[in-house]
Amino acid sequence: MEKFELDILGCGSATPTTLHNPSSQVLNIRDKLFMIDCGEGTQLQFRRSKLRFGRLNSIFISHLHGDHCFGLIGLISTLGLLGRTGDITIYSVAGLEEILRPEIDFFCKDNPFQVKIETFDPKKSEVIYDDRSVSVTTIPLKHRVPCAGFLFREKQKEAHLIPEMIKFHNIPIRDLANIKKGADFITEEGKVIPNSHLTTPSEPARSYVYCSDTAYNEKIVPIIEGVDLLYHEATFVDEDAARAKATGHSTASQAAQIAKLANVKKMMIGHFSARYPDNQILLDEARKVFPNTILANEGLREKL
Amino acid sequence: MEKFELDILGCGSATPTTLHNPSSQVLNIRDKLFMIDCGEGTQLQFRRSKLRFGRLNSIFISHLHGDHCFGLIGLISTLGLLGRTGDITIYSVAGLEEILRPEIDFFCKDNPFQVKIETFDPKKSEVIYDDRSVSVTTIPLKHRVPCAGFLFREKQKEAHLIPEMIKFHNIPIRDLANIKKGADFITEEGKVIPNSHLTTPSEPARSYVYCSDTAYNEKIVPIIEGVDLLYHEATFVDEDAARAKATGHSTASQAAQIAKLANVKKMMIGHFSARYPDNQILLDEARKVFPNTILANEGLREKL
Repeated sequence: MEKFELDILGCGSATPTTLHNPSSQVLNIRDKLFMIDCGEGTQLQFRRSKLRFGRLNSIFISHLHGDHCFGLIGLISTLGLLGRTGDITIYSVAGLEEILRPEIDFFCKDNPFQVKIETFDPKKSEVIYDDRSVSVTTIPLKHRVPCAGFLFREKQKEAHLIPEMIKFHNIPIRDLANIKKGADFITEEGKVIPNSHLTTPSEPARSYVYCSDTAYNEKIVPIIEGVDLLYHEATFVDEDAARAKATGHSTASQAAQIAKLANVKKMMIGHFSARYPDNQILLDEARKVFPNTILANEGLREKL
Repeated sequence: MEKFELDILGCGSATPTTLHNPSSQVLNIRDKLFMIDCGEGTQLQFRRSKLRFGRLNSIFISHLHGDHCFGLIGLISTLGLLGRTGDITIYSVAGLEEILRPEIDFFCKDNPFQVKIETFDPKKSEVIYDDRSVSVTTIPLKHRVPCAGFLFREKQKEAHLIPEMIKFHNIPIRDLANIKKGADFITEEGKVIPNSHLTTPSEPARSYVYCSDTAYNEKIVPIIEGVDLLYHEATFVDEDAARAKATGHSTASQAAQIAKLANVKKMMIGHFSARYPDNQILLDEARKVFPNTILANEGLREKL
């Protein structure tokens, strides 16, 4: 099966600790790498995770807090040193252009590729990226500054032909493309051979959602309904729920409540506050509400 | 003896590796911390080295290549999160203001302290910082962009009084300050008691030089003559001398030649190219020319 796997590069929050890096992760979809957020030190963890810089396709920035974007200039600079030639696009809320462009112009003027910055409106849910493997849809989140999550939905692949049946019915090559897409076959005699006799279904399309940073927000539930994996921030424990509310963050059990309402298959929690030396308490609280929860951690690779 | 010690936070070069961080170090002079250069991830290594953010006094940036300054915005942001109130000054070649100020204004607008950026001219050697413990002098270096090294020279402390002699000669308290500074004492009868009978000398003032990045440049020798510790970049081995010249860097043996000509007491080499998985070869080449050489390494603390 082709790859659809998530690498956690950082799952800490604003104050860096020696336990966690600031936010960043990479979703590998069929060997194209999609980076989500890029805190300071991301390029180093990217290297440690043995990901290939040359496969980096595009970057999605949820919001303009430093722990989600301070690593961009270092990463872009390194891509230049490594001789990248293909342009790269960063999808971001408004404001990044004004901050990052002067840095790129000053530090990376010899880069042999362009950095394109595409802005989206985090107040609405819309498709901001689409290719033959995947579409990316924004998810409006509730934070102190404009902020969006991202839904990565793999495209359904074509059905697999059953060679013996194709041969048995003498189906010409020119008809195979349509059959893979689901068409029935009609013989010269006018007989209909249903598609289900000629093909086996492809693997189910996979889906992944990134929601960070956000306060508890039930409005996202219909957008993320039933996804295979939800990464949801869980900055605080229940006891610090007031602080979560005040700062536009979620507790672990609020994250779990969203996972439960949206009926997702699995949840990973992250964006841990530096105040908890052991994240097990966050996991315990989440699992009381949504048992199929795991903890993010630097170096973790989750295959879907 | 009061502190005069150097912490290495990063001694790699432009391309980050999993072996070395980009350039940064901290000189602790009598519990004031002076940071020199601030590559990406510096704040994390600062924490790992168990240095205290509250003691950070000022920051010196040698030149505007990313591996020497990309960590500034993250560090400043974290100082704000930690509640710093005292202003901080960054000493830099021209250009930093235009890059860093928009970032500070955007990301750190709630910081309860000001970041002052003082510009120096890297073409001349001048005192850019001076307090009662230390003076900092710039050293013009030879690199692809305007670049300076820094000479930190501790102020000579006052001599120690010898209590028995002070008592024996019945010296009034009002005269002690001058005697500590080196004055003789004249009794009421007009007899001169030489200072050397009344005091023991204070510890010798210490000195430290940072030279990175630079090609081989004998012009710096008179400025750094006889210092206690010279940190000199040694990006390449002899075999790559042509590459060193082309990129404005030094080989390890060129660094050692400077140390020898300047008659420094000890040298530390750093800014290692990512191409050498083992830096021992750099050390070996340097020691052939200047035996009292050591390798920089993240986490190393060198006490002077």
